[in-house]
Amino acid sequence: MYFYALMMNGIPVGVIGGSGYTGRELSALLGSHGGVDVRFATSESEAGRPSAARGVTLARAEDVRPEDAEVVFLCVPHGEAVPWMERLRGAGVRVVDLTADHRPGSGREDGVVYGLPELVGERIAGAAAVANPGCYPTGMLLALTPLCRAGLIDTSRPVVVNAASGVTGAGRSPRRELLFGEVFGDYRAYGLGNGHRHLLEVRTTLPGLDVLFVPHLLPVARGILETMAVPVPDGAGAADVREAWAGVHAGGPAVRVLDEGVPSLSDVVSTDVLALGAVDNDGLARPTVTVVAALDNLGKGAAGQAVQNMNLMLGFDAGRGLRC
Amino acid sequence: MYFYALMMNGIPVGVIGGSGYTGRELSALLGSHGGVDVRFATSESEAGRPSAARGVTLARAEDVRPEDAEVVFLCVPHGEAVPWMERLRGAGVRVVDLTADHRPGSGREDGVVYGLPELVGERIAGAAAVANPGCYPTGMLLALTPLCRAGLIDTSRPVVVNAASGVTGAGRSPRRELLFGEVFGDYRAYGLGNGHRHLLEVRTTLPGLDVLFVPHLLPVARGILETMAVPVPDGAGAADVREAWAGVHAGGPAVRVLDEGVPSLSDVVSTDVLALGAVDNDGLARPTVTVVAALDNLGKGAAGQAVQNMNLMLGFDAGRGLRC
Amino acid sequence: MYFYALMMNGIPVGVIGGSGYTGRELSALLGSHGGVDVRFATSESEAGRPSAARGVTLARAEDVRPEDAEVVFLCVPHGEAVPWMERLRGAGVRVVDLTADHRPGSGREDGVVYGLPELVGERIAGAAAVANPGCYPTGMLLALTPLCRAGLIDTSRPVVVNAASGVTGAGRSPRRELLFGEVFGDYRAYGLGNGHRHLLEVRTTLPGLDVLFVPHLLPVARGILETMAVPVPDGAGAADVREAWAGVHAGGPAVRVLDEGVPSLSDVVSTDVLALGAVDNDGLARPTVTVVAALDNLGKGAAGQAVQNMNLMLGFDAGRGLRC
Amino acid sequence: MYFYALMMNGIPVGVIGGSGYTGRELSALLGSHGGVDVRFATSESEAGRPSAARGVTLARAEDVRPEDAEVVFLCVPHGEAVPWMERLRGAGVRVVDLTADHRPGSGREDGVVYGLPELVGERIAGAAAVANPGCYPTGMLLALTPLCRAGLIDTSRPVVVNAASGVTGAGRSPRRELLFGEVFGDYRAYGLGNGHRHLLEVRTTLPGLDVLFVPHLLPVARGILETMAVPVPDGAGAADVREAWAGVHAGGPAVRVLDEGVPSLSDVVSTDVLALGAVDNDGLARPTVTVVAALDNLGKGAAGQAVQNMNLMLGFDAGRGLRC
Repeated sequence: MYFYALMMNGIPVGVIGGSGYTGRELSALLGSHGGVDVRFATSESEAGRPSAARGVTLARAEDVRPEDAEVVFLCVPHGEAVPWMERLRGAGVRVVDLTADHRPGSGREDGVVYGLPELVGERIAGAAAVANPGCYPTGMLLALTPLCRAGLIDTSRPVVVNAASGVTGAGRSPRRELLFGEVFGDYRAYGLGNGHRHLLEVRTTLPGLDVLFVPHLLPVARGILETMAVPVPDGAGAADVREAWAGVHAGGPAVRVLDEGVPSLSDVVSTDVLALGAVDNDGLARPTVTVVAALDNLGKGAAGQAVQNMNLMLGFDAGRGLRC
Repeated sequence: MYFYALMMNGIPVGVIGGSGYTGRELSALLGSHGGVDVRFATSESEAGRPSAARGVTLARAEDVRPEDAEVVFLCVPHGEAVPWMERLRGAGVRVVDLTADHRPGSGREDGVVYGLPELVGERIAGAAAVANPGCYPTGMLLALTPLCRAGLIDTSRPVVVNAASGVTGAGRSPRRELLFGEVFGDYRAYGLGNGHRHLLEVRTTLPGLDVLFVPHLLPVARGILETMAVPVPDGAGAADVREAWAGVHAGGPAVRVLDEGVPSLSDVVSTDVLALGAVDNDGLARPTVTVVAALDNLGKGAAGQAVQNMNLMLGFDAGRGLRC
Repeated sequence: MYFYALMMNGIPVGVIGGSGYTGRELSALLGSHGGVDVRFATSESEAGRPSAARGVTLARAEDVRPEDAEVVFLCVPHGEAVPWMERLRGAGVRVVDLTADHRPGSGREDGVVYGLPELVGERIAGAAAVANPGCYPTGMLLALTPLCRAGLIDTSRPVVVNAASGVTGAGRSPRRELLFGEVFGDYRAYGLGNGHRHLLEVRTTLPGLDVLFVPHLLPVARGILETMAVPVPDGAGAADVREAWAGVHAGGPAVRVLDEGVPSLSDVVSTDVLALGAVDNDGLARPTVTVVAALDNLGKGAAGQAVQNMNLMLGFDAGRGLRC
Repeated sequence: MYFYALMMNGIPVGVIGGSGYTGRELSALLGSHGGVDVRFATSESEAGRPSAARGVTLARAEDVRPEDAEVVFLCVPHGEAVPWMERLRGAGVRVVDLTADHRPGSGREDGVVYGLPELVGERIAGAAAVANPGCYPTGMLLALTPLCRAGLIDTSRPVVVNAASGVTGAGRSPRRELLFGEVFGDYRAYGLGNGHRHLLEVRTTLPGLDVLFVPHLLPVARGILETMAVPVPDGAGAADVREAWAGVHAGGPAVRVLDEGVPSLSDVVSTDVLALGAVDNDGLARPTVTVVAALDNLGKGAAGQAVQNMNLMLGFDAGRGLRC
């Protein structure tokens, strides 16, 4: 194996679950990364077909040797990452888990670093296991955490988050409500009642915050736009928000703070960037800033962030292989 | 003319501006209404081509006699309805103005009834002129007014409205940002800063309310979904909201209150119905109900409501000719 | 039952398979037809939920009495209509079968009239059973049969048909390749090799014709556009084609022949009309006319035509209840 | 300036017309190419805004010095390239013209190489001026020329080409028929009568061929799919077609021949690849192969091919900077 790695000139990595939307996006990024060598990408349903990593054929999980990889990515359905995590950590393989199984609030976060590079970058470098954040929480937390730290959120009032996601965010398993004939021309709220799984990550990470989160299904393939009504202290406004962001995000490869206005979905689709914008509002009794976060649910919201985490774990430049 | 009207067995009406999205939708509804006779539909750019009202050819405004109609609909660009209103009222012709020119807050609302049939039905019957409400305000006001009347809104907190509209809401004039190549796969907030023209109607109609309104452009042709975070008094909830709606809207042809859950866009596209739903939220410091209003911007949000107003003005059943 | 029918003032009909795209479209048309009374609409997966026929709740097939209906529509998956047909005909119930099971070439067409009203209208009136044509063949046969009859096709050369259909044409059962995430932004040929099931209907009906048929999956919900390269005899052209069409289709409610140019999909979506246009071509060694047929796969291509057939069977006006 | 070029380590190039769809795509490719330095990208309507080439601001044409570039790309509207070509060639600047102004059949092709790298690669290397092919002809010519050369087309019968293009193919100037509200859910044939401008390129390049070409407007942003009914000699078939393609295209970076089946649009969108597939057909009097060519109209159909041409002109690897 040493000889092979030398030949390939890359650190061996692997993908468990390489045929879903996230697994394919990740495989493609890893395949063109340059610093790593994709040893395997698994799929039970599409074994034998080419993976999205150039030159790598999808194989059944039982036919690959995950222990040969230095880092393994878990792109399995939510709930199925737990046994993989145990097996791989037992074998000394480092793991980036893209499921919700080890995220904050899951009850399984012990010894697992929550992989938001912009907020805890230094901890990721040495992590044996990383829980890759959810797509919606990535936008909310990278927008709101710097504001919390700077005292720019009036916590006596709720933050109202209306979010919209493209359909790939719901996965690639056939379900009637995700058929083209159902989604085309439609737009709907879902996960109502403020109990969406993703909220747990946000609440656990920002415990003092009152958040109302309403996700919507958008008739596009990719992308998330989160529109947040952020209550700010008297006298504060969008300029302060941008300044707080700049303090945390300046210099990072994967977050872009707009000087004015707000980003749109097409600004970030098929990239690994999160774009942030803030605007003041007129005519309200108390000041509220409209914050918009835009990201690709498969990019910075999943595969791009996983690669960014891997870069930190393996000592590469944080932005290597990313579309930024 | 008496003889002709007799033959056609319908009350003579006309459309100024019959080739835009709203003018066409309205012409089609009037053409199949059965109780009226479309005497003319005008268009400067498409004169000579068939209108959407069966059997009626588009004509230049200078070539028609608006005074021959009993009711004339104004589907001209915002700002151009003022001289038409003067001319027609001077001639004793009743007017339904679909522009913003005579709506609450415009400064020109004197002698003009704001045409929300569910809220002021009795006043419309005798009106000489009706200002047809905006598409966004229709959803907001029909959802929120019953709640205000019932004391179900905690006015110490703002109502946060995130709305999304299909592209026909922006009209049919060629603009780069409305090209298919720009909108396809995109989603964006616009009208930021809480100063959207439509807010004026809402604020004037519900003066005690603190509203933050953020509209978005949705990559579909038709339909509006408005997701509202409505602060309610302690102890109140979605069931109370539905009950308040039922008290106002039960029996009307054009508003449907869902027993549970919330409507989606496809429930109402190409209909003249406004659908309303309400859901309670967990995990918030103070109670907030998520209200969703869905309507077709060209249906109940424009042409459908205009026909509903006309029905009341002319003594027809309120729902005649509507897709309810 | 006599008393009930009297009360409802309609002939009793029923739908087997009321929750697929075709079954819902058909139920909606029947529900607003006015001359019939929808006694039942079945669904195994959605029993208990409202059907698309106003006031009718979906029920399991075992819980309805098909024998109570005068006409029953079969909207089951292809292959499942055979036992239904036997049972219903045994009970003296007339049947409109929307599956492929009894169409020309199926081997089961004995005693079943192929329901193309424009071509065999008189035979449908007295039929005990009607095979409702496929969506693609409807366009091809209503365009080409009048030309064959008029000697306007040079049968020494093939007719090349490139067709594109919206996704509802593939049904509502969950399949990965029909997910929104797969179809959005895509366009593809399928059914390659000239062996598409629908060709059988065309070949059996027009045996002398050499047809190359290539269907494509279009990223829209509804509608079929068929672009046909029709070889015509020397000296013949588009004007002759239109004249031949006029001879067959003039006066019918569901076929519209354009005076010039060709129809687009949006001309016919959500209608029960087939639109036909023809254009001459320059620069070819031998004359070929481009014929375009546009129809809604759920309208004239399925449910609309089924209602048209029912109208003939029951003595209603052919166009009653249709969106023409 | 010498020092600057040295610093940038790239050959100076420029783009006239950098804000249209093609100009932006091209600027982005050039900006990440690595071997060239984008000195300017012009736009009259968007001067002062960032171009798609990283670090380059759009400028008015009068404010740039085209003569400083070694290669200039013309992405102006059709008809406006002629004076630019004269001026630049007079100054000794090499030109890649992406308009139709100097393509075969234009009457201005003297001294201009028609830039189809796979067919005339060696001539491009030394060209002072290159006419970048049209998007539709690229697919037709790269598919059909190898077949003509191999005697695989029965020229006594026409080749019938049905093509569909995404909306960016029609440019970024505001026109009503390109509005989202018009195109969404629609699909239509255009350029009827077999007189499309692009045919001229094909006929001039393959004079012996009888081609019927019917383009359609597809409701997607990007991509072209061309479905061709190719008459082949008795005994020939899809396998021969693939073999003929392999002889010409094997080893090239930008054409991919499928071993079986045909490509779909999503296989090539946002790439610079043309994918080709061929399938035999049953049930026809004489053999006809269905050929499908798929490409991105902005990639291999415009900007990608322009970069490929530039690579040959400047001695780079043919595939450098391309998404293949």
